[in-house]
Amino acid sequence: MAHAPSELALVPFVSVENMMRIVHAVGIERFLAELAGYIEEDFRRWERFDKTPRIASHSREGVIELMPTSDGEAYGFKYVNGHPRNTRDGRQTVTAFGVMAGVDNGYPVLISEMTILTALRTAAMSALAAKHLAPPSARTMAIIGNGAQSEFQALAFGALLGIDRVRLHDIDRSASERCARNLAGRGIDLSICATPQEAVEGADIVTTVTADKQYATILTDNMVGSGLHINAVGGDCPGKTELHPDILKRSGIFVEYPPQTRIEGEIQQLDPDHPVTELWQVIAGTAPGRTAREQITLFDSVGFAVEDFSALRYVRALLETVPHFDALDLLADPDDPRDLFGMVMRAASPAPRAANGI
Amino acid sequence: MAHAPSELALVPFVSVENMMRIVHAVGIERFLAELAGYIEEDFRRWERFDKTPRIASHSREGVIELMPTSDGEAYGFKYVNGHPRNTRDGRQTVTAFGVMAGVDNGYPVLISEMTILTALRTAAMSALAAKHLAPPSARTMAIIGNGAQSEFQALAFGALLGIDRVRLHDIDRSASERCARNLAGRGIDLSICATPQEAVEGADIVTTVTADKQYATILTDNMVGSGLHINAVGGDCPGKTELHPDILKRSGIFVEYPPQTRIEGEIQQLDPDHPVTELWQVIAGTAPGRTAREQITLFDSVGFAVEDFSALRYVRALLETVPHFDALDLLADPDDPRDLFGMVMRAASPAPRAANGI
Repeated sequence: MAHAPSELALVPFVSVENMMRIVHAVGIERFLAELAGYIEEDFRRWERFDKTPRIASHSREGVIELMPTSDGEAYGFKYVNGHPRNTRDGRQTVTAFGVMAGVDNGYPVLISEMTILTALRTAAMSALAAKHLAPPSARTMAIIGNGAQSEFQALAFGALLGIDRVRLHDIDRSASERCARNLAGRGIDLSICATPQEAVEGADIVTTVTADKQYATILTDNMVGSGLHINAVGGDCPGKTELHPDILKRSGIFVEYPPQTRIEGEIQQLDPDHPVTELWQVIAGTAPGRTAREQITLFDSVGFAVEDFSALRYVRALLETVPHFDALDLLADPDDPRDLFGMVMRAASPAPRAANGI
Repeated sequence: MAHAPSELALVPFVSVENMMRIVHAVGIERFLAELAGYIEEDFRRWERFDKTPRIASHSREGVIELMPTSDGEAYGFKYVNGHPRNTRDGRQTVTAFGVMAGVDNGYPVLISEMTILTALRTAAMSALAAKHLAPPSARTMAIIGNGAQSEFQALAFGALLGIDRVRLHDIDRSASERCARNLAGRGIDLSICATPQEAVEGADIVTTVTADKQYATILTDNMVGSGLHINAVGGDCPGKTELHPDILKRSGIFVEYPPQTRIEGEIQQLDPDHPVTELWQVIAGTAPGRTAREQITLFDSVGFAVEDFSALRYVRALLETVPHFDALDLLADPDDPRDLFGMVMRAASPAPRAANGI
């Protein structure tokens, strides 16, 4: 071509391979802890964000969503799909990628895979919520549902709260075995439990992260003792819940963004005016978190755009010291901004710059 | 890394350089004509599209927008910014990229630069509308505003309608000179005019495509004679219009998507119930276009997501025969979809497959 793309045309791109390199260069526990720090920082300044519920395109097979937000300086959005039947042909149920751009000129500054990054931010978000809500003495967590998110949850709770006993349950025992195998050698005392009841015995925290797209009751009221913190991750879209409504009614409920959680979260089972606390207010110190040792606290997690923004912000900052990325020639950059046509046409002629010896 | 990404992980990416290669391989006039054909096809099946106004994030400096749509089989969206002051530091006012994905599994199938592609689709859309609305005998077009879009407009009208006389006007004469220079040798009779009045003399079609973000009056009522087709491209956001309201009141007005055009188009100057015709109905044959030789027709163009969808669909089809693209490692693709963590962790170890001689 006539001209090599200029600096302005290039956007850093973090591929799946480079995301894995970055995670290993940083160390996964440190990555989770630092990412939680970025989320915490953004939740503290929650009111500065331009918030909107995700924009969803539903079909019979699943959903494709765009999740944009902005803090007034940077703009970010995530593309994410949810297709429960994808595993039948060897595909992921959820894949994602994200973009960050400068608000001042609208130019993208980062494009990143977000399938792995979303798994990391979801776990970091869960652990961050628990840091503010769970009993301070918590050491043991039950994880019910041992799919792709389970190991990330265990490590994030280890990194942020010092959880070192994890009780696994899945209707498919091989999933628990895979999870235990993947977590071996990381200083976590792991046990595989035959039933949800068995898993919650002695647990200070219960994480529910099952995958079925249907109203399910993973936890029933009698399984939930006083003082527990429940981290409900799997109920995250209309028609998909995991907890019996009686549990919700006994719990102090904490959510990310009420307009979205009322539709997608466990609280879709409750009256639309059932009281909930916005987690950012707990983190900012303007609303109480856990108010009593015996209180049941529930983080009704659905995943919100601000968390993805924090994750992109963290990765972008990491690239300064861990520069695993490619440069994508994404933005047309004519010498004269009014002469886009001239740039396109000159691209047809054989490299005049080289011919001029430049 | 341990494993090369599988086919499922890779998404075709059309860079700026490859988009220019594709345009040259096809030929720009043929590209514009075929692209217009794709838009025409999608406008004929307009009712199948999932339509929503663009999702805009406004700031003092400009706007960042996401424009999604779907026809039930494919899903597409465009990211586009508009920052009028960007040219001050050598950046484009508008840059864009787009993504197409399968509705059945949510996996992206194409990522493409869309700064150049949007310029092409805007011109193809304008010419397509004129094909259905302008007087059949039209040969002469005035282009008022000779910025980055002007050459594309001239070529698209040449390719689709046989326009071979173009009268240029810009408040900055050097812009007209650049446009004329870029279009030289293409069989178009070009003249540079000192005033808009002079430019519209003898024109069958008037294209207004100025850039100022303010209420401007590029055309006044006395400049518009009977039988004219007006292609109003530049008035495309709240507060930005080009035509005097009296012209609108004398014209048959045709729009892409009324809920968006009422806010962004020339018709923001009219009552919200002023009658307009949806262009897709004209193309589908369910509403009349031009009803009389002396009628003034006006295409109040703002750019709609379906047109970007058509453009992505066309580029995707072109890649079969003009395979100028890179493969992006965008989608995490673990051997076992439930074992994302295992994939990440195995990436740390030195290539075991190679060690096994595979």
